[in-house]
Amino acid sequence: MRRIKLVIEYDGTNYAGWQRQENGVTVQQLIEENIQKVTGERVTLHGSGRTDSGVHALGQVAHFDTGARMPAEKFCYALNTGLPDDIRIIDSCEVSSDFHARFSAKRKHYRYAINNGAHASALYRNFELHVHKTLDVAAMKEAAKVLVGTHDFSAFKAVECKLNAVRTIYRSEISTDGNRITYDIEGNGFLYNMVRIIVGTLIEVGYRDRPPCSVLEALERGERKLAGPTAPPHGLALVKVFYGGENLPGKT
Amino acid sequence: MRRIKLVIEYDGTNYAGWQRQENGVTVQQLIEENIQKVTGERVTLHGSGRTDSGVHALGQVAHFDTGARMPAEKFCYALNTGLPDDIRIIDSCEVSSDFHARFSAKRKHYRYAINNGAHASALYRNFELHVHKTLDVAAMKEAAKVLVGTHDFSAFKAVECKLNAVRTIYRSEISTDGNRITYDIEGNGFLYNMVRIIVGTLIEVGYRDRPPCSVLEALERGERKLAGPTAPPHGLALVKVFYGGENLPGKT
Repeated sequence: MRRIKLVIEYDGTNYAGWQRQENGVTVQQLIEENIQKVTGERVTLHGSGRTDSGVHALGQVAHFDTGARMPAEKFCYALNTGLPDDIRIIDSCEVSSDFHARFSAKRKHYRYAINNGAHASALYRNFELHVHKTLDVAAMKEAAKVLVGTHDFSAFKAVECKLNAVRTIYRSEISTDGNRITYDIEGNGFLYNMVRIIVGTLIEVGYRDRPPCSVLEALERGERKLAGPTAPPHGLALVKVFYGGENLPGKT
Repeated sequence: MRRIKLVIEYDGTNYAGWQRQENGVTVQQLIEENIQKVTGERVTLHGSGRTDSGVHALGQVAHFDTGARMPAEKFCYALNTGLPDDIRIIDSCEVSSDFHARFSAKRKHYRYAINNGAHASALYRNFELHVHKTLDVAAMKEAAKVLVGTHDFSAFKAVECKLNAVRTIYRSEISTDGNRITYDIEGNGFLYNMVRIIVGTLIEVGYRDRPPCSVLEALERGERKLAGPTAPPHGLALVKVFYGGENLPGKT
């Protein structure tokens, strides 16, 4: 058996997220079905993590094991033939049997896109959150910086998530291009809804409904109610998953 | 009666183009229906020009006449409420009765987007043409420049188009950002399929299937068969329509 690593781009708009489930079509399910068509094998595709319904990926990573003899780099072409055009396998390669898409991941990069113009965009409506009220970007930048480092993110996880909440954030950065505001966050791991709760909190800072220092207070007290609401999924994209070996700027 | 000018952004993916027709839903039709809902009047919405099915607009312009008393700048909000989210009115204002969206237009700016990476993009699949084979961008830039100036574009119009083909092109420019190739063209008017035929020709230049100088030959001889194929619609967007009064850089 060989282990094949896939890098996957998808538009999450029309899916019930990454992970197989009873209600709704998921990205994992469609790729598993296509692997079966190509190899004749029923496989489990292990992703680096789930993404929610509506969340996109530019570089989700997953692996599966196969006895098929097809050259590893051909899997992306073979799978793309059968997949809908809102899911694209952008790379496939063979990895050693101790590689695991989830457990070997060292770092993930997420990006959240906000359109702060007067009107939502007809073209990019599924890929950015439209916020009509002008946001205080300087305050958002200040608040974003507070998150860098190793912290307990209990205030920034969904209440039903019971995992240990200590995570290290290497990058937490707001940038702008005209009316577009982009938030980039990189960390060694993320809790359920963590990025969307952080973004919901930063937007409240941008509204001047809370001061930037309130983010530090939420971190320190670890209470979910001290953070902001969960921002909608469609502005969020999983940009890249890092496994070491890559150049990791900013790693502390 | 007052004349109202609208600036409209739309994702052309799900429409049979701009202009009202019997088969298929069009952008003009949906906006006219919504104007009727808002004002109670049946109006004709005059666009700056048609766009084909699948072609997008960042700044299509149209006008209509109304007896409604609503402040002109409120029309965009009132109409957006009833329109699907792939059509957005991004501006509305009152103009004088001698303004005509089509006949007053001085210049139009179109943009065509090409993804020259190994794989099509799952996210941007409806907004760019994927070309797998690596294009010779330097040759495309050279060929694009040839089109600037006043020429007879008979070779670059759909054969069924019988209009006089003399047009002035102010800008014809290829630029790149990683694997993305963007073609920007501005002119005083465009013939049916003109931009898509120009792009189809530039792609043949990029394939090295024809030399850049063949574009000049096609221009001079005016024969459609000397130009390339019509590029697909989904990479094309009408960026802006100019009516004078704006700063028009590069106008000769």
